[in-house]
Amino acid sequence: MPRIALDAMGGDYAPAATIAGALLALGELPASTTIQLVGREDEIRAELQRQGGVPAAYESRVEIVHAPDVIEMTDKPSVAVRSKRESSMVVGLRMQADGQSDAFVSAGNTGAQMAASTVILRLHEGLTRPAIGTLVPTDRGVPLVMLDSGANVDCSPQELLQFGWLGAVYAEDILGRTNPAIGLLSVGEEPEKGSLAVKEAHALLAASGLNFVGNVEGHDIPHGTCAHGALDVVVCDGFTGNVVLKLYESVAPMIFGLLVKFDVKQDGLESLLAMFDYAQYGGAPLLGVRGVSIICHGKSSPTAIKNALHVASLAIAHDMSAHIGRSLRAAPVVHGAS
Amino acid sequence: MPRIALDAMGGDYAPAATIAGALLALGELPASTTIQLVGREDEIRAELQRQGGVPAAYESRVEIVHAPDVIEMTDKPSVAVRSKRESSMVVGLRMQADGQSDAFVSAGNTGAQMAASTVILRLHEGLTRPAIGTLVPTDRGVPLVMLDSGANVDCSPQELLQFGWLGAVYAEDILGRTNPAIGLLSVGEEPEKGSLAVKEAHALLAASGLNFVGNVEGHDIPHGTCAHGALDVVVCDGFTGNVVLKLYESVAPMIFGLLVKFDVKQDGLESLLAMFDYAQYGGAPLLGVRGVSIICHGKSSPTAIKNALHVASLAIAHDMSAHIGRSLRAAPVVHGAS
Repeated sequence: MPRIALDAMGGDYAPAATIAGALLALGELPASTTIQLVGREDEIRAELQRQGGVPAAYESRVEIVHAPDVIEMTDKPSVAVRSKRESSMVVGLRMQADGQSDAFVSAGNTGAQMAASTVILRLHEGLTRPAIGTLVPTDRGVPLVMLDSGANVDCSPQELLQFGWLGAVYAEDILGRTNPAIGLLSVGEEPEKGSLAVKEAHALLAASGLNFVGNVEGHDIPHGTCAHGALDVVVCDGFTGNVVLKLYESVAPMIFGLLVKFDVKQDGLESLLAMFDYAQYGGAPLLGVRGVSIICHGKSSPTAIKNALHVASLAIAHDMSAHIGRSLRAAPVVHGAS
Repeated sequence: MPRIALDAMGGDYAPAATIAGALLALGELPASTTIQLVGREDEIRAELQRQGGVPAAYESRVEIVHAPDVIEMTDKPSVAVRSKRESSMVVGLRMQADGQSDAFVSAGNTGAQMAASTVILRLHEGLTRPAIGTLVPTDRGVPLVMLDSGANVDCSPQELLQFGWLGAVYAEDILGRTNPAIGLLSVGEEPEKGSLAVKEAHALLAASGLNFVGNVEGHDIPHGTCAHGALDVVVCDGFTGNVVLKLYESVAPMIFGLLVKFDVKQDGLESLLAMFDYAQYGGAPLLGVRGVSIICHGKSSPTAIKNALHVASLAIAHDMSAHIGRSLRAAPVVHGAS
């Protein structure tokens, strides 16, 4: 009986978008799934009523968990996590640590979610940092996982190796890839190309036992392939990952905007736009914590929230966190390095 | 009487593409400009003949400078520069150091061109490394300068500051921007966002006297604007710059490919494609050397070579290298840090 806690108060459009996303998800998720709406009870009830209430068929699958406080987007993460102990975010994660929930989804303050998840759920042994794994659309038709996409700006070679292990499990459990191909983002294919950290990470990944295909380059990302074939996971530090992601997210809409400006006829454009619609990928898991914590964009639409709930549901169904624990225990290099 | 030395032997399609580019440029560059074709004299003469010879009107503006050796794409840069002293690259750059030429353009081995340019032309005082400045198309209709785009993978905060000064002069002299707006690529707008090196560079740039507009993010690049308005220069380390550039170059063609696949009508698409055609931007100057050294893509077409010759011509006309020297002397922070 999977239980997913949703931070009803998190995100620029909360609680309207979060409640709407939860209502959408109820019709799609396995019927055994319960959604736990965490936040200010009166605001949640008012919003539910405004949206027509929970349909009778789903009533038993919705719980409201009162949390009187809210971590704002502008709050300093470390301070907020310590001082706002009755916030929807801290309460939602604590429920999971206490065995009363199986996953947490939020579109709130990302820094606070990372800090709270790390403190409350704790990291798997062998890890020094969690990483955000983001799905990136490719013209192969299926996305790849890029990580870290923003949790860690300065990364050691050992952390890049850890991301390889985390990304491999994500690609298996959420994308259904077998023996996923892991690439290391660099500035040339050859092992001797890259920053000092990347060159050392290359050696660690090559010796890891992962299906490491070597260095990949910026132009490999949109194709989801590299010189060695399909690419399932791209490992990079969170600085590069964040820049790449924000650039990539902005290029497709820009080109579509120009197409309209240049009066290109739009038949068929919609299915193409859908391919680059980030809402379809919903949330990005914070990988490495003992549990499930899904990070959504602050501007998440109801569809994005719904899809994040799907990711949470898949992570629970595959017991992804336990899978990560097993993988790391079988990875002596990670343990030797941590 | 500007003289531009062109490495006739450099690039995947040399000498056919380089000679064709030179012939195209003769009709467009100021009539006082001489092009010095550097390379194996017999091969250059044969290729010129194959392409119909130099038109009589331009004959006095073409020189052939014999250089018996060629640095191959696969040669190790530092070794090649020392051992192939009669290569087209070394000979072409030495001509400039000896006052017999005003600029050098090559589509050959980039690493070797950087090494040879630094050794033969030497760096301006106050600099520790040269940087490659690349023009990036934006939907503002005019490009911005991104640097470093690949010369330096690990950069100190002081080097990022130096790139700010180099980029400012490039934006003024080649793009004609007044008081160019300089942004620092990071993972958030706030000064406290970014890697350790980027945060320190932010402080240095803010105190530099440059028109520094603060941190910019990945999504600002395709628009050529940021929260503070127009953006003329984006400063980043060569690792991030290289990844961004290769990703950006590949996204537009990918989307155009999908448009065709999705059967989108193509009226007007050509002018849009032209906007993303990197050949129009030709070459990227290696900024910081005492002289002019323009780096072209190995796969440069004749048009790309022609446009690189234009960039060289502009750099000579504005005496860009002297301008850089003046700027750096007026920048006490750079000197204090170097």
